[in-house]
Amino acid sequence: MLVQMIFASVAVEPDDAAVAKILTQGRSHNARQGITGVLCHGHGIYLQLMEGNRSAVNQIYAKVLQDPRHRDAELLYFAEIQERGFANWTLGHVRLEKLNASAVLKYAERLPLQLDALNGAAVRAMLLDLAATAAIAHK
Amino acid sequence: MLVQMIFASVAVEPDDAAVAKILTQGRSHNARQGITGVLCHGHGIYLQLMEGNRSAVNQIYAKVLQDPRHRDAELLYFAEIQERGFANWTLGHVRLEKLNASAVLKYAERLPLQLDALNGAAVRAMLLDLAATAAIAHK
Amino acid sequence: MLVQMIFASVAVEPDDAAVAKILTQGRSHNARQGITGVLCHGHGIYLQLMEGNRSAVNQIYAKVLQDPRHRDAELLYFAEIQERGFANWTLGHVRLEKLNASAVLKYAERLPLQLDALNGAAVRAMLLDLAATAAIAHK
Amino acid sequence: MLVQMIFASVAVEPDDAAVAKILTQGRSHNARQGITGVLCHGHGIYLQLMEGNRSAVNQIYAKVLQDPRHRDAELLYFAEIQERGFANWTLGHVRLEKLNASAVLKYAERLPLQLDALNGAAVRAMLLDLAATAAIAHK
Amino acid sequence: MLVQMIFASVAVEPDDAAVAKILTQGRSHNARQGITGVLCHGHGIYLQLMEGNRSAVNQIYAKVLQDPRHRDAELLYFAEIQERGFANWTLGHVRLEKLNASAVLKYAERLPLQLDALNGAAVRAMLLDLAATAAIAHK
Amino acid sequence: MLVQMIFASVAVEPDDAAVAKILTQGRSHNARQGITGVLCHGHGIYLQLMEGNRSAVNQIYAKVLQDPRHRDAELLYFAEIQERGFANWTLGHVRLEKLNASAVLKYAERLPLQLDALNGAAVRAMLLDLAATAAIAHK
Amino acid sequence: MLVQMIFASVAVEPDDAAVAKILTQGRSHNARQGITGVLCHGHGIYLQLMEGNRSAVNQIYAKVLQDPRHRDAELLYFAEIQERGFANWTLGHVRLEKLNASAVLKYAERLPLQLDALNGAAVRAMLLDLAATAAIAHK
Amino acid sequence: MLVQMIFASVAVEPDDAAVAKILTQGRSHNARQGITGVLCHGHGIYLQLMEGNRSAVNQIYAKVLQDPRHRDAELLYFAEIQERGFANWTLGHVRLEKLNASAVLKYAERLPLQLDALNGAAVRAMLLDLAATAAIAHK
Amino acid sequence: MLVQMIFASVAVEPDDAAVAKILTQGRSHNARQGITGVLCHGHGIYLQLMEGNRSAVNQIYAKVLQDPRHRDAELLYFAEIQERGFANWTLGHVRLEKLNASAVLKYAERLPLQLDALNGAAVRAMLLDLAATAAIAHK
Amino acid sequence: MLVQMIFASVAVEPDDAAVAKILTQGRSHNARQGITGVLCHGHGIYLQLMEGNRSAVNQIYAKVLQDPRHRDAELLYFAEIQERGFANWTLGHVRLEKLNASAVLKYAERLPLQLDALNGAAVRAMLLDLAATAAIAHK
Repeated sequence: MLVQMIFASVAVEPDDAAVAKILTQGRSHNARQGITGVLCHGHGIYLQLMEGNRSAVNQIYAKVLQDPRHRDAELLYFAEIQERGFANWTLGHVRLEKLNASAVLKYAERLPLQLDALNGAAVRAMLLDLAATAAIAHK
Repeated sequence: MLVQMIFASVAVEPDDAAVAKILTQGRSHNARQGITGVLCHGHGIYLQLMEGNRSAVNQIYAKVLQDPRHRDAELLYFAEIQERGFANWTLGHVRLEKLNASAVLKYAERLPLQLDALNGAAVRAMLLDLAATAAIAHK
Repeated sequence: MLVQMIFASVAVEPDDAAVAKILTQGRSHNARQGITGVLCHGHGIYLQLMEGNRSAVNQIYAKVLQDPRHRDAELLYFAEIQERGFANWTLGHVRLEKLNASAVLKYAERLPLQLDALNGAAVRAMLLDLAATAAIAHK
Repeated sequence: MLVQMIFASVAVEPDDAAVAKILTQGRSHNARQGITGVLCHGHGIYLQLMEGNRSAVNQIYAKVLQDPRHRDAELLYFAEIQERGFANWTLGHVRLEKLNASAVLKYAERLPLQLDALNGAAVRAMLLDLAATAAIAHK
Repeated sequence: MLVQMIFASVAVEPDDAAVAKILTQGRSHNARQGITGVLCHGHGIYLQLMEGNRSAVNQIYAKVLQDPRHRDAELLYFAEIQERGFANWTLGHVRLEKLNASAVLKYAERLPLQLDALNGAAVRAMLLDLAATAAIAHK
Repeated sequence: MLVQMIFASVAVEPDDAAVAKILTQGRSHNARQGITGVLCHGHGIYLQLMEGNRSAVNQIYAKVLQDPRHRDAELLYFAEIQERGFANWTLGHVRLEKLNASAVLKYAERLPLQLDALNGAAVRAMLLDLAATAAIAHK
Repeated sequence: MLVQMIFASVAVEPDDAAVAKILTQGRSHNARQGITGVLCHGHGIYLQLMEGNRSAVNQIYAKVLQDPRHRDAELLYFAEIQERGFANWTLGHVRLEKLNASAVLKYAERLPLQLDALNGAAVRAMLLDLAATAAIAHK
Repeated sequence: MLVQMIFASVAVEPDDAAVAKILTQGRSHNARQGITGVLCHGHGIYLQLMEGNRSAVNQIYAKVLQDPRHRDAELLYFAEIQERGFANWTLGHVRLEKLNASAVLKYAERLPLQLDALNGAAVRAMLLDLAATAAIAHK
Repeated sequence: MLVQMIFASVAVEPDDAAVAKILTQGRSHNARQGITGVLCHGHGIYLQLMEGNRSAVNQIYAKVLQDPRHRDAELLYFAEIQERGFANWTLGHVRLEKLNASAVLKYAERLPLQLDALNGAAVRAMLLDLAATAAIAHK
Repeated sequence: MLVQMIFASVAVEPDDAAVAKILTQGRSHNARQGITGVLCHGHGIYLQLMEGNRSAVNQIYAKVLQDPRHRDAELLYFAEIQERGFANWTLGHVRLEKLNASAVLKYAERLPLQLDALNGAAVRAMLLDLAATAAIAHK
């Protein structure tokens, strides 16, 4: 079963080195597990989309819940899919603060983003927008 | 919760200076509150669309009802949205009388516009038309 | 309330001067009343589409029923609309006999057109076709 | 072509004898022409639904526009149908003021009914309600 | 134009006498204006649904915003309708705390209800449920 | 935001006392947090549905992932809802092995159920079936 | 391929003996060919519905066109079907003039029926109505 | 009433002169009757689409059934339409054997085409394809 | 993955003992594999529906293709399902010749049934009909 | 009846010569039978799509089940179609391992592909993608 999951979490000490390490570890793990997706960070939070085998995706989320670099992780979206939307990114990378503010505000109530006010379907639409406009880096 | 609201009101003494002041105040307030939208004026009325956090949008409408520059304010449209249609404008500006008459008549029963005869869905369609044809000024 | 109405009638003595007079009177009236639309003639009939305030449109139809230039007027189509399809024409003008025959036959059982065999939805589709292909003259 | 038409008009001197005469004449005419429908009166207005051959229905409306018992007649609804909704009534009869007020208010902005504020689709829904609840008299 | 509006507000000193007075005044006003609806109270809030002429409904909401018995009024739902859902109640009355808790929780995130967490469509569904189960008192 | 979540897990030592304790603790927690739902057990697994505030539901799932009574927990279904389907159960209780086998097989590939082969939408349909047929005990 | 076809024709000398013979011959032929359907007569016309193998149905229609008991036969309806609507009648029989007039007028412009004014979909709806109300005789 | 009909038949002695004669006669008849359409031949069969007045189309089909140049004629498709799809061809002409084989096979079970295996909707889709790709000759 | 498959085959020497043996073997196998379904026989053919794990269903079909009791087996229907339609029958049993002939003819071109003329969706509809009318024996 | 079928199988000794032979035999057979489709191989499996006459397609699948070059063949998709999607390929050829990995991963849980985890609708979408991007060789 192929699923797509999006979660958000409060980023604990998200300096550049920490994010780089998450990306390196994530890409290595994803490549082995056939998982594709995107990691966004900024506004003090992480936003992560994953797609792949249901069990493999669930295991990543279980690890995130115990990872000290994430706090208050919250599931935003989960659906069975027939076709991936992010097959081109093993773990794409988006710095939210480098985007045009209106590109984020379009899908949010306020800036900076707040975890409790994130809408799962809106976040998914924003990520698809970023994919379509080539705003996701580091395949 | 992200909402979109449109209201109309009779404009009380809407000279250029008054409109300029409404725009300046509105943009400053909207920027702080994460609100986006458009103010149209002409035909003796104001037409305003706002999108943002439901409570923040409601507070603006409550203020308009007590603002002596507006009379007979009337709600035309209100809906929960997942995606903003006017994210590019903190408070865009449209002088209705500078538009091609048929661009307004397309969505109205007669010209000049009359508050009672405005249809919410038609006004929303007109504003989306104006956004698509770059007829909204002053981002 | 914004409505769109189409009627057909048998044209009584429809020489060029008569049609020109109908167009002149109609445009003057329509401009005052915020009505837009098209007058087609040929095949011995008039086909007229009007859009605007419901009461204003009804008054025109009531007058047509008493106008000696029209006989056997018959309502073909009537619907509430949110957006006009002919906002660019105060009273556009189409000589049916100058059109390519297949452009008319596409929407009719036979040529010449016969009032009883006209289908309202088909006539509306033909008029929208004419609008889209710039075949409506005299804005 | 089978059509359904609804119009409203201001009733000129609608005393019981006048209404009785309209019903008698209407039923006789409708029976000859294969027309079915309903006449409602009250609140100073007539509301009439007719269904049958398009040309026959149009001729009745043309006569109403010249009948001194009706003033300001206004078309509210017109559609091609495949199946009649009122086949059981040659010209049914409803005294609006004998109905439960909420049965009328359900489909109207205010009581008494006002011609300009009538919505064609709502009036049609009200008549279908009356048919379903056996509130239409005198088949 | 017939509309349906729902708003919520924090109830300021909502003792029985105060609520009784709101109901008496509201019914008298609604009967004159052709407005129908429901007033719910409990959990420290008022929830009010109104349906009727758009301008008349807007005027009530404008008054509520200035009424010291209401605080933080917030629009939850607004839509043009063709048919009322509450035509049987000039201003129905529901004490939320007398309802089975699960009848309210079904449409809410938590009890007691909190103004910010109310969803307009869910509140509307709850009110329709109450109408269907005869849980609205005092026609 | 109101959500509905379903997860399954391998039951570690699920004797009667253990299940009773999960139910007691769950009901107490759910009642405080406005959460409603159902716990099924049997075939060596737990199947749990929860509905309520998104953040509160997410916190329960985070705890389950660390609870030694559950192993290999896997999210099966997650969606924003407007109306609860299980508002009548603070934490209902279903012993899967007491059900008619065909009531479970209807929604599964084989019996006994296997965590990897569970389909989220099918499990949800089975739970709604159980609710409709009064097969959920202990409100 | 299973199809449903409806045609109408002018009945040439349709006395009782002639109709009885058509029914006897038709039932014998239909039983051999796996065809089911209905023959209506009255108003000077025949209305016949057939369902079965496409080629077998086409052959019957070809014969009707050469049968001196039918004149001006006209196809009204033809569609591929997956399920018969008249499986209970080898060739059911309806005398149109014995039906309640409103049961026929409901689907027609005028009485008596006229071949040119029959609408295929309306005739099909009438026949389904007759089947549902047990108005088709002689299985 | 405007209809579209498609039939197929076995071609009896379809040499070039015979087909040319059918086209000449057909175009002359169609032009007089306001009929448009296409004649395809090849694989030993004729495939003909006609659109126009229902009665006129039915008369052509009745003649084909008695025309010695056609055998085993079988109706494939018949529907009321609002708009013609082949208004540009009085009687267009397609030699099936000159088409790319895959253009025909796309809509058929095997080549050569066999009358019994033709599907009406598929044949119609093939003809629309031919119209769109300018593969229909001799307007 | 849960699937539903229907196939038909020519029955080779289908006397009562042979059918009884197929049922006994099939029920034993189906019970072990979590498969449910129905076996119909009559008219010289078998019609079998199976639902369960995709791989298990495919293995049965592979065996049927080599089973000398079946000839010319042909797949009629195959779809992924979320919910079984025949969960109450391990291998239900229907003697087609004991059914009312019209119950079978409703879904077929002719009787006796012929393998080549069976339509998958129609056969499925017939089986659901039989399930709903308790015409399937021997759970 | 025109159908589309997709199956997968484990490839037994799939060296280049073996695949070339399957293609040669398949194309010759398909051309004779009016069958079109695609053969993909790689990841140790074959994926084959066929479209054509139902009986002819079923016979190919029956042969594959007995062909020693295929093991564990499993039906993935089967549907009646009106129009082929692969009419341009008698038996197209795709080496899965020559494709961009993300083009396959887009429709799969993991790479290499595993027969049990293939989803019929996803495989069909992948093949249509390959057809649209000209990635199918050897018509």
